[in-house]
Order: sequence, then structure tokens, then C-alpha cells
Amino acid sequence: MMMMVMWWLTVVAGVASAAVKEYNWEVGYKFWRPDCKEGTVMAINGEFPGPTIRTNAGDIVVVHLTNKLTTEGVVIHWHGIRQYGTPWADGAAGVTQCAISPGETFTYKFTVDKAGTYFYHGHYGMQRSAGLYGSIIVDVAEGEREPLRYDGEFNLLLSDWWHQSIHSQELGLSSNPLRWIGEPQSILINGRGQFNCSLAAHSSKEQMNRCTFEKGDQCAPQILHVEPNKTYRIRIASTTALASLNLAVQGHKLVVVEADGNYVTPFAADDLDVYFGESYSVLLTTNQDPSRNYWISVGVRGRKPNTPPALTLLNYRNVPAADLPSSPPPETPRWNDYDRSKSFSKKILSAMGTPPPPKKSDRRLILLNTQNQIDGFTKWAINNVSLSVPVTPYLGSIKHGLKGAFDPKSPPKNFPADYDITKPPANPNTMPGNGIYTFPMNITVDVILQNANALNPNVSEIHPWHLHGHDFWILGFGEGKFRPGVDEMAFNLKNPPLRNTAVLYPYGWTALRYVTDNPGVWFFHCHIEPHLHMGMGVVFAEGVNRLGKVPPEALGCGLTGKMFMNRNR
Amino acid sequence: MMMMVMWWLTVVAGVASAAVKEYNWEVGYKFWRPDCKEGTVMAINGEFPGPTIRTNAGDIVVVHLTNKLTTEGVVIHWHGIRQYGTPWADGAAGVTQCAISPGETFTYKFTVDKAGTYFYHGHYGMQRSAGLYGSIIVDVAEGEREPLRYDGEFNLLLSDWWHQSIHSQELGLSSNPLRWIGEPQSILINGRGQFNCSLAAHSSKEQMNRCTFEKGDQCAPQILHVEPNKTYRIRIASTTALASLNLAVQGHKLVVVEADGNYVTPFAADDLDVYFGESYSVLLTTNQDPSRNYWISVGVRGRKPNTPPALTLLNYRNVPAADLPSSPPPETPRWNDYDRSKSFSKKILSAMGTPPPPKKSDRRLILLNTQNQIDGFTKWAINNVSLSVPVTPYLGSIKHGLKGAFDPKSPPKNFPADYDITKPPANPNTMPGNGIYTFPMNITVDVILQNANALNPNVSEIHPWHLHGHDFWILGFGEGKFRPGVDEMAFNLKNPPLRNTAVLYPYGWTALRYVTDNPGVWFFHCHIEPHLHMGMGVVFAEGVNRLGKVPPEALGCGLTGKMFMNRNR
Repeated sequence: MMMMVMWWLTVVAGVASAAVKEYNWEVGYKFWRPDCKEGTVMAINGEFPGPTIRTNAGDIVVVHLTNKLTTEGVVIHWHGIRQYGTPWADGAAGVTQCAISPGETFTYKFTVDKAGTYFYHGHYGMQRSAGLYGSIIVDVAEGEREPLRYDGEFNLLLSDWWHQSIHSQELGLSSNPLRWIGEPQSILINGRGQFNCSLAAHSSKEQMNRCTFEKGDQCAPQILHVEPNKTYRIRIASTTALASLNLAVQGHKLVVVEADGNYVTPFAADDLDVYFGESYSVLLTTNQDPSRNYWISVGVRGRKPNTPPALTLLNYRNVPAADLPSSPPPETPRWNDYDRSKSFSKKILSAMGTPPPPKKSDRRLILLNTQNQIDGFTKWAINNVSLSVPVTPYLGSIKHGLKGAFDPKSPPKNFPADYDITKPPANPNTMPGNGIYTFPMNITVDVILQNANALNPNVSEIHPWHLHGHDFWILGFGEGKFRPGVDEMAFNLKNPPLRNTAVLYPYGWTALRYVTDNPGVWFFHCHIEPHLHMGMGVVFAEGVNRLGKVPPEALGCGLTGKMFMNRNR
Repeated sequence: MMMMVMWWLTVVAGVASAAVKEYNWEVGYKFWRPDCKEGTVMAINGEFPGPTIRTNAGDIVVVHLTNKLTTEGVVIHWHGIRQYGTPWADGAAGVTQCAISPGETFTYKFTVDKAGTYFYHGHYGMQRSAGLYGSIIVDVAEGEREPLRYDGEFNLLLSDWWHQSIHSQELGLSSNPLRWIGEPQSILINGRGQFNCSLAAHSSKEQMNRCTFEKGDQCAPQILHVEPNKTYRIRIASTTALASLNLAVQGHKLVVVEADGNYVTPFAADDLDVYFGESYSVLLTTNQDPSRNYWISVGVRGRKPNTPPALTLLNYRNVPAADLPSSPPPETPRWNDYDRSKSFSKKILSAMGTPPPPKKSDRRLILLNTQNQIDGFTKWAINNVSLSVPVTPYLGSIKHGLKGAFDPKSPPKNFPADYDITKPPANPNTMPGNGIYTFPMNITVDVILQNANALNPNVSEIHPWHLHGHDFWILGFGEGKFRPGVDEMAFNLKNPPLRNTAVLYPYGWTALRYVTDNPGVWFFHCHIEPHLHMGMGVVFAEGVNRLGKVPPEALGCGLTGKMFMNRNR
């Protein structure tokens, strides 16, 4: 398998040949059977998942998004697209724009500056969990050559699915006592899963219902039809709300080549851990017995699973697609084998040619992740602040210098040195806050994510942290409490992976570095939908004073909305 | 029973002693057991139904309404309050204001100019069905004497309740094929009903579960505790979405004295028909055997009922409240005994002193009510227009002279003379529209509501029509097609009831008259929540050019919102 990695050049060249890709989208609810049981999904132009955006690096994407919901606002975040020069198009409600009200149309316009595998999703309330998501696939710029060589490709967008409505989920999470959403009922591959039946029932030792489908069934699996002895690129992204996933293709190696829109040093794996908010490309060569089919299995890790794996088939074309393998699907690795998980994470290293991180940082934040309470309500907090996103988007209140929109005081940059991360918080009470971290332009920031024990003893959860507006380098993972002056000695400054999402392991730390080179206000948060809803995020701002025009349509709410109204008086 | 009716003087006098009643309200979802089965309700300050506003005629009510919903907008309509001079406070989304977005506060401020029994409710999507409602009780002005004489009073706010979420209901109604919401699971009295059990199980011939309650149970009935030989005023209002109701108190006569905030000529009845959007006061004298209790029963009429009656008790104080009557509750009159229903409606006549209608009208609209289809979607239409409320509230686009917000052409003022109201529409297809009827100030308008056959043969439904901003006189009810030049000869011009809601019977007509004396834009619509959602309404406007300031906060959406933004450029 030949492969050339020269993506940095691609980016620069791509900008020259910019084309405009324009879409008219309508968001509305639809009755649908994602996992063979009917529910309601948030669909785009009637499609679930939403339409795939396929474009070339350097292209300009224009999405006219019309809200056809009856009473709910909506926004869409373009996950992994850095929004250089267009921070108002980032689609984070309360951070970069006001939610789009029913009946209104908002136009997102941004450059997709880098080839890779991305996705988009709702970023208001828990609308992502309602199914508001789809894929963005960016090919290399027109006229450029894709450095990876493959004969065909597939795209797998992974998600998890609940039968409880998001409104009821949101209410439960905001209730005292907390009503936890529980484990998902189903895992979906491209919006398709099977609840209460299994494709692999015949090969299981357990008693399971066998799935049957009618033609055109909304929950029937999409089968990957392949030719023998070819190489396929499989794009994989996870927009799950709660489930850490592991993907395996029976009998086949997966060569990991891309992570979050950045090429990585290729390595072969038997299976792939995929955390919430991550995307990957793997190359798969169809070098196995072509007279049979193979399971593709996507199972749950990181939490004690109570959801059966999602299944589909790798179908060698000369075999009928209906021929199910007689052997059971690959078994998902043990959910709490964190050593295995960490070993996988550490294999992901940037490809040759990837820009290395600056050798030193100018600022450092250490962000303690804790589960807390406010007046008996369960929350998540960072350095003892549980984020409560304000009504006026930060981007607007900062740009227009409006006071009173949020707490002007920065949240803490560290946590008390004597905090014991191995135990439940000594004082579980925290406060809501909406202060942000503001940085000068073009400095290097290190962020150390520090995990800790949750409210119950002997519990520390995985948190996948996603940064808007930037990629960051993952400099390292560590156990226990980060030791300043010691642990940075082991940072990988040579070939750390450049990503937009990083996992934080239980009781450990994860070190990130990024450069404040993108004027705007950027959400940085746990990508677990209920954790974000419970306050697990922070906000970074840089160079907002350098910004050009922000479309007023992004700011027609809160104090910016009042500003527009009052200037007319 | 002594009774003096001199309310017209009361109104005028009341204005002099205006007090301000100020409320801070937060709207949010809450888990609740309205009918002993848990669901989610839309609560105000955690209360369901919302808090009762109790005030005096002439007072100014100020409600600071904060939207604490996660992603949904909200408004509140003050049903029966005419909003003289404050049409922007009428709370009809898309007509008089933009929905209040999550996190925002909107201040309603209006004068309650007339004593009576009113209520408030959500008027956006189907939020009324989610439980967003409460009572408004207006006493006579400070220093005035209530013309009715009674020793105590009770307030019964009636509603119907579904276990399906309103989001799912809305989606079903907007789906092709239509998914009808079906009959309600329960009827609620002051937000309390009993699903799957009956208070009267012991006295029923049918096999029923007997209800048991724990202390403080959210679904336990509120019992009316009375002394013997006293007279009580029972205020009754119906905010049902679908159910026409009939209320009876075992063994007791009800003397009807008020309808929709207007005194009526008292008459005694064994039971009371209450249609959606109507309010009444009845006087009940506790002149029965004081050694037992009596059922209060609220059953369904007007549609083939599939919902058991709501029950509570009239408890004579010397009897334990737990002593249930041994005889069964009063039987609700047959649902389709329309002769009985009409006979009741015709008994409601204005009290002495009520201003009579002008003798002649200046304009006449004849509004044909039909069930139709648009591209296979089931709709309701008026003169073949199914109302689609625009994004920009009419009040704003008219006041600011903005073009393009709605169709400037008036909808038809009549329907084709050869239309056969006894059969399904020959051409069932209709079109959405958002044109309105505009009238000069201070003219007299007659509105003839004309019922017809629905899409299925031999079906014609009851429709309760509610007008915002005005009371109207109900001049008459008739069978079949209204005959211009003939039927108006029988109009009651002497003592027609003055009301804000009028029922339209199957295959019949109802004639209303009102004076355009209130500058504003006024919704006039069927008060059946799903019918309104399916387009069954029209809009009247008068004198918008005379209006003073409209708070810009009411208009921060659509073209008015854009106007505010663009003036700054």
C-alpha cells in the first residue's frame, strides 16, 4: 500500500481554486424508525441523518438554514471546521450566535480549509441527541492529489439513540433529584440500528430475536459492498451523546490514516476506539476469503454497556449480501480495559509534514473536571465553575462592548493544590458561572485537562473534550494528578497528533497545546451531550477586536438584540 | 336570591382607582402527575396550572414573563382581556408579538377593564395542550359593589390531557397521512384528573379501579367544601384542546349568571355545557340534604367521548369529605344531542344594562368552515384559505409599513353561492394563506360563521370561535346555510349575549356582531387546539395607524427584527 503525506501543501494550494457550494436546508421533526422502533427525529430536508456535504478543500460552503420547527430554535455547528474569519458561523448557540427562531432563515458561510472527515450537528439544548447531524467530507483541493491511495470509500457516521424524547431527557437532567438518561437503546450506523433484534441472532449463544426487514426499511443496515483485493477508505465519525465506541471488521486489519481531519502516521489495528466528537479514516484491504461475508461491529466502551453493538456487513461482491457469517461478530474489548484504550490513543501520532507544536507555551490552564451540585441539582464543573451559557452570545457582547452580558471575571486558571482527585469532592457544592478565558492573539496556550473522582466514590468517567475554532496538539496523557515542572518533560513535541477532540481518561490528565491564531470566541467542552447540558464546558476568546463584520442576524437576541432596538429610539 | 346587575357603571368607575399588580413568572417544564400518570407539564413558577391572577376591574396587570424553556419560544394570551390600547400585549405569537426566546424576559402590561372570570394560556404551537394555562379572576373595581350576591366562591379551570407529548402531537397533525391526536386520556379540574381509576368505581356497574391517593397527591381531586343553606359562586372556564364539556352537580341546580366576563340574565339549569374558550359563573345554593356529599361531574360532549368524566365532590362540611355518594355521578347528556346543546346556548341572554348591539352592521363576512387538504396534508380552511401565520407579527409589519411580511390581498369575504355544505368539499384542495381582513375604525361588523361537511361524508364538527381584543354579540344560531336577507330578520337585537367565544354547531351557522373600536390586530380562530394548528383561523385588523408605541421587544423577529438591525448599518 503506497501512501504519500503532503497535506500541508494541499491546504495552501486549495484556497486558490475556491468554489462555492450552496445548500438550502430546512430543519423539522419527522416520524422515523432509526432502530426499527418509531420515534421522532430532527431531519434536514426530510433526511435523517442530514444530507452529506461533499466538497473540496478551499471551497466556500453556504448553508441557508431555515427553521421549520414549530416552537424550537435551532443552530448547526460544523464540527472540525475551524471557521477562520467567520467565527459567527460556528453555530454554537449562546457563544457565537442566537438560536435561529422558528420560521427564520440564517445563512452560514465558511471556508472548508482542509481535506478530511468531519460532521455537523445541532448545538442547542440536546438537539444533537434528537438526530440533528450529518457528515461533511472534504476532498483535497481541486487539482490536488489525495495523498492516500485507495480504490473506493465508505462513510460511517456513528451515533447513539434513546427512545425518550430530548425534551424529557433535558428535563430529567435539570431535575432534583437528577433523572439520568441511562444507556442508549441503540447504536446507529448512518442512522440505522436494530432494537430488540439482532442481525447476528443465529450465531449467538444468547436467545435473541432475529431481525427481518422489508424493502426500504429505515432501520435496515447499509451493507458495505466490496471487491476482493482492493483497498478502501472507511471514514468513521462519532456524534454519540454518551457512548464511547469501538469498531471492528471481522478478519480485517484497519490501518488508521486520519484523525479529526489530519493525517496521522499510519498504523494497523484490529479495532478502532472512537470517542464522541472524533473522526477517523482507516484503510481496509479486502484480502480475506472472498467466498464469505464479514461482520462490522460497533460496540460500547468506557461505560458499563447496556446497549447491544450495532452491526452491518462487509460484503464481498461475489457472495450474496444476505449470507450472514456463521461465526459471531467480533467481540468489543472489555469496557473498562483502560490500559488497552490508552495504548490505542498513544498510537495516534501525526503524519510526516504535520506542523509541529511550538516548543514552549505562553500560558497554561489546568482544568479540573468535577461532578458537583448546585442547590441539590447535579452538575459538572471546571475549576469549580459550572458553565451556564448566557442569553447574549459572547461573540456579540464582546464585539459590541456590552456590559452585563456575562461575568467579566475570568474563571480560575487552576485548582487548589491540595485537591484530592482520588476522592469525591470534599465540598460538592459549586456555582454556575459564565466567565470566559481571554487570550492575546498568536500566543501558545497549554491546557491540562485534569480528571477526578465524581460524586460517588470510585467513579471517574471518560470525558472527550472538543475545541471549536482550532486544532490542538495532544502532547500527552498521564495518570493521577498532573505534576507541573515534571510531567511536561515527557510531552511529545516531535509528532503529537493534531486534533480537535481529545479524550480524558479516568483519574488521569491530558495535555493540549494550541495557538491563538483565529479571532473569535470558541467553545471548549465535554462532547458528552448530557455533561455539556449539565455545565461541563469553558469558553476561550481571542482577538475579537480584530473581527470584521458579524452578520446582525447572528445577534438578534439578548443585549445585542436590545442594542439594535434601542438605537432606533 | 337577590341580584342586581349594573356592571356597565362598574366598568367606568373602576378605571379611576387603578392599582398595579405585578408578577414575575418563569415558564419551564416540570415532571407532574396531572392524572396520576407522570408526564411533563409546562409550569409557571413551578405551579401547574399556573398561578391565579386575582385583581380588581380597572387594575393594571404587569407580568414579567421569563422563558426558562431550553429551546422553545413562549407567549401567553390573556383570554377575554380586550387589551384596549395594548394590542401588543395580547400574546398571540405571529399576530401581536414574536415568541419570547429561551432566556429572555418579556413584560406584558394591560388593564383588566371589566370584572369577570377569565383565563390565560399559551398561544404558540400547541403549548396550551402542554398545560400552559391558569385563571384570571377580576373582581369589581375597588369601592364598587359586586352585583351578584353570594356567600363564598370556587374556581374550576377545566382542561383535557394527553399522554402523548405536544411535540409528537404537532408532528402528527403536520404529517401526511394525518396522525390524529385522538381523544384526551383525561379531563382535568384545576389540573387534576384520574387516569385508569375512578372516584366513583364503587357506584358503577362497570368494572373500574378505585382511586387511592397519598397526601399531597398531584392528581387528588380538589373538593368543594360548603356549608348548608348558603349560595356559592362557582367560576368555570374551559381551556380544553378538544373536548366540549358538560358540568353537573348532583342534586343541585346551577343558576347561570356570567358568561365570558359578562353578566347574563340568570337562568337555572341542571347542568352546564362549557365549550373550549368559554367561561361562566353559576350560583349554587346548598339546599340539599346536608348529611351527605354530592358528585361534581365534568363529561365530554360534542364528539363521541372516549374519556371518562372528571369527578370531584361537593362536601357539606358536617360530613367527612371521604364519604363518597353511594349513587353514581350525574350522567353526561348524550354527546350528539345537539338539540339539547342548542337549547342551552339559546338560553344565554345578556343581563339588563348590557349595551345592546348597533341595529345595523356596516360590513358582513360570511366565513365557511371546511376541512381540506394541501398536497395531501389535512387542513382546516376558512373561505378556502388555511391560515399560515407569518414569521413577522402582523402588528409589527402593519405598524411599520413593511412589505412582504404577508399577502396584502384580503381573503374572500364570502364563499361561492353554490357550495353544498351538506357534502364533503367537491374539490378538497385548498391553499395556505396569510392575508387578513382590515376594517375602518368604529364600524359595525357582522360575521356569519358557516359550518359545513368535513372531508368524510356525514361529518360536521363543533367549532368554538374565539375573538381576541373584543367581545361580540351573538345574534343568532341557525340550521343549514345562512340565507342573506332572510335569516337576519330573526337576529336577536334586544338582549343577545355579549361574549368572546361562540359555538358553531354542525351544519349550522352562528351570527356575531362587533364594533371595531380597539386599534390592533386580532386573532379570530377556532379554539380547538389541533384545528388552529391546522389553519383554522382568520385575522382582523383595525386602526393600527392610531397605535402609540409598540415595545420593540415584541417585534424582534422576522422583518421587524431585520428592520431594527438594518437601521444600524
